[in-house]
Amino acid sequence: MQNITYPIIILNYKNYSQTIGNIGLELTKIAENVATETGASIAVCPQTVDIGLTSQEVDIPVLAQHVDSNDFGSHTGNNLIEAIKESGAIGSLVNHSEHRLKLSDIEKIIDKSKRMNFYTCVCSNNIQTSKAISALEPNACAMEPPELIGSGVSVTTKPELVQQTLVAIKNASNIVQPLVGAGVTTATDVREAIQMGAKGVLLASGFVKAKNPREVLLNMAQALTK
Amino acid sequence: MQNITYPIIILNYKNYSQTIGNIGLELTKIAENVATETGASIAVCPQTVDIGLTSQEVDIPVLAQHVDSNDFGSHTGNNLIEAIKESGAIGSLVNHSEHRLKLSDIEKIIDKSKRMNFYTCVCSNNIQTSKAISALEPNACAMEPPELIGSGVSVTTKPELVQQTLVAIKNASNIVQPLVGAGVTTATDVREAIQMGAKGVLLASGFVKAKNPREVLLNMAQALTK
Amino acid sequence: MQNITYPIIILNYKNYSQTIGNIGLELTKIAENVATETGASIAVCPQTVDIGLTSQEVDIPVLAQHVDSNDFGSHTGNNLIEAIKESGAIGSLVNHSEHRLKLSDIEKIIDKSKRMNFYTCVCSNNIQTSKAISALEPNACAMEPPELIGSGVSVTTKPELVQQTLVAIKNASNIVQPLVGAGVTTATDVREAIQMGAKGVLLASGFVKAKNPREVLLNMAQALTK
Amino acid sequence: MQNITYPIIILNYKNYSQTIGNIGLELTKIAENVATETGASIAVCPQTVDIGLTSQEVDIPVLAQHVDSNDFGSHTGNNLIEAIKESGAIGSLVNHSEHRLKLSDIEKIIDKSKRMNFYTCVCSNNIQTSKAISALEPNACAMEPPELIGSGVSVTTKPELVQQTLVAIKNASNIVQPLVGAGVTTATDVREAIQMGAKGVLLASGFVKAKNPREVLLNMAQALTK
Repeated sequence: MQNITYPIIILNYKNYSQTIGNIGLELTKIAENVATETGASIAVCPQTVDIGLTSQEVDIPVLAQHVDSNDFGSHTGNNLIEAIKESGAIGSLVNHSEHRLKLSDIEKIIDKSKRMNFYTCVCSNNIQTSKAISALEPNACAMEPPELIGSGVSVTTKPELVQQTLVAIKNASNIVQPLVGAGVTTATDVREAIQMGAKGVLLASGFVKAKNPREVLLNMAQALTK
Repeated sequence: MQNITYPIIILNYKNYSQTIGNIGLELTKIAENVATETGASIAVCPQTVDIGLTSQEVDIPVLAQHVDSNDFGSHTGNNLIEAIKESGAIGSLVNHSEHRLKLSDIEKIIDKSKRMNFYTCVCSNNIQTSKAISALEPNACAMEPPELIGSGVSVTTKPELVQQTLVAIKNASNIVQPLVGAGVTTATDVREAIQMGAKGVLLASGFVKAKNPREVLLNMAQALTK
Repeated sequence: MQNITYPIIILNYKNYSQTIGNIGLELTKIAENVATETGASIAVCPQTVDIGLTSQEVDIPVLAQHVDSNDFGSHTGNNLIEAIKESGAIGSLVNHSEHRLKLSDIEKIIDKSKRMNFYTCVCSNNIQTSKAISALEPNACAMEPPELIGSGVSVTTKPELVQQTLVAIKNASNIVQPLVGAGVTTATDVREAIQMGAKGVLLASGFVKAKNPREVLLNMAQALTK
Repeated sequence: MQNITYPIIILNYKNYSQTIGNIGLELTKIAENVATETGASIAVCPQTVDIGLTSQEVDIPVLAQHVDSNDFGSHTGNNLIEAIKESGAIGSLVNHSEHRLKLSDIEKIIDKSKRMNFYTCVCSNNIQTSKAISALEPNACAMEPPELIGSGVSVTTKPELVQQTLVAIKNASNIVQPLVGAGVTTATDVREAIQMGAKGVLLASGFVKAKNPREVLLNMAQALTK
């Protein structure tokens, strides 16, 4: 996946009011600007309907928040990977805590994505599910303790959990990039995650809902690359 | 809902390979052209990720294939109505046979859509579910017998079913527009549906997979308006 | 449905620790005893796996907490109505707030249950879903505002909601018995529900988790019948 | 798990008409009789509502067809492991092809089951999902190609698939017992599965719908133990 480099900051826009259409595009331009200024690797996950607009306007990796496992056909309302890719996304989050999938669908999505050169960052919720997901060899596995998501308390406040997860992912596969997320809101959180061995962080409200998103992301990006 | 008039032909693009990105846009331009030429009311339901592109390029009503019931917030991967609307869709299919929803979510979607002046065409599968849906008063209720969807055998081959459904919808509410679908592939199917009292038809492969989509739709549009 | 009379108290055992196996059976015997002593109509909804044991041991109506819509066949792990009925349950709750179903499945369950002379008490969450459910004509519709379930604040603290719901159900069908639930914990709650026009109440923790379940239920039963 | 020995035949009763109540009990008595006569290890998975009756009447391992991941509490209509266990089942199938679960729920079920000394046989559908499931270390992993389930064409007609699955499971964990299933209908199918290295088979219609279930199972049991 040529466009994704590590360490990385992945920004999930969820269904936040601050991320719709042109308002969201402003956030994405901030992210692009910070990436350019710092050399940090930053990807954004806009709302599905905004993927096309976003891909046209910025030059950083755009990921979907969710894709379905089906192929072409009679599947009304599904997020077809082929259509998502055509619109400019180079990959997707999969199995986010707020959009948990069946194991058989996660496997189908990873398998299909590999054949399509489509990037997958699959979310897990603990050490055990990180192992299971890594056995399927997605491009990345992002472990997020559900109770910390949106809490403002960083996953890095649980260093043992993070380190054991990183070991579990590495033992399962040496090609899966280990990421962490949940409660990441400061440059310190990012720095600690990287120091613990993570190849990047996944965050949402920490950027989207920040009083000064540019300042927050700039500090995070500098923490990532130093 | 000012942009939707009846009788109407609603074209559902599902996840068909023929409907992605610019290829799908060609189909939509055909639909726009036929609408202009005949004066028929025609709406299209592109894949979610193509709603923005479609809305910019054509001047016929664009509907989503599916929306979720949630409001702004931490809902990764959901189809937020506010975002869908911002991207240019004026409404959505709801509860399609290939994307069945919980009753409580259908109700939330209809209720929220009314407050947002967002059009809802809710699909049902028989007389009874048409009654229940009409009690919730969406803008339209499109009854499609699941066994006929994609079959090429039109719903109009079951005139008693169609007529009893139309009566059931009317008895439940006089503001819900009754539509029918499933297996609609010819101008005759459309004409019969209108003659039975339907205010329009919902179709997918009959247009998308036709050898000559323009010819098929032109004939249907003429059948609709005469 | 000969065994169900109104007004009724329906006791939902959920997955509470107090309701498993022989411990739950003690609660059910209390319910039977109170029913006998007061002449009140009381039904219990044990955990699925306890339906057989319960049906053998007591002589009050036993309902399942959930049934699936499928018929005989390859459906591993589903709650087949035929098997539930054979084990002694005479009906089931359907679409409880903690087990919401797709509209098409609710309709199939009600339709199949009628043909099998199997009682259905379908739960709704507001006025609108009560209307939609009543259009399908189950035996009873139990409206429970989700935010009050398990709260200890009775649904009867919202008299306008209750009364408008009762009107909505009656207008939709005169054969659907209107019940209410959520937060019902005292005899006063039951008395008020009946005075407002409900034909009964649905409760769970108010009985199961009471310090003295017999006393609570006895008071409720007396409130029901006076 | 003292009651489960290998190689094993696990009989899944699904929602077949032949497995309800006392009729199903007759099948289970046949299974018990064959187990006694041959010394083969045979377990049955009755419909949930029949677990209690079955456990009282026979002395072979009884498994549920499905359990939910939740603990005690407000979970109407769920299959609580504690209640299932109390009723006499010593374990459960998990994630059957006809009841696929989210990865996070599979993990919770396995984790909770271990703490409760409750047996889990988790179903997979291919080599990759077998790996992922084995990383979670259930007691057994039963691989069943979905397209062969109920087909009468045995999984053993795909020896490479079976052997690669067995290797994948063994590489992931040496404590997970590898089983196979789908289309198993004859003693030859069972013999081949064991010869390929499987520790047992999972079957349903091959036994339940056989003209002579006793004869079929007897032959299978003999193939298993020789």
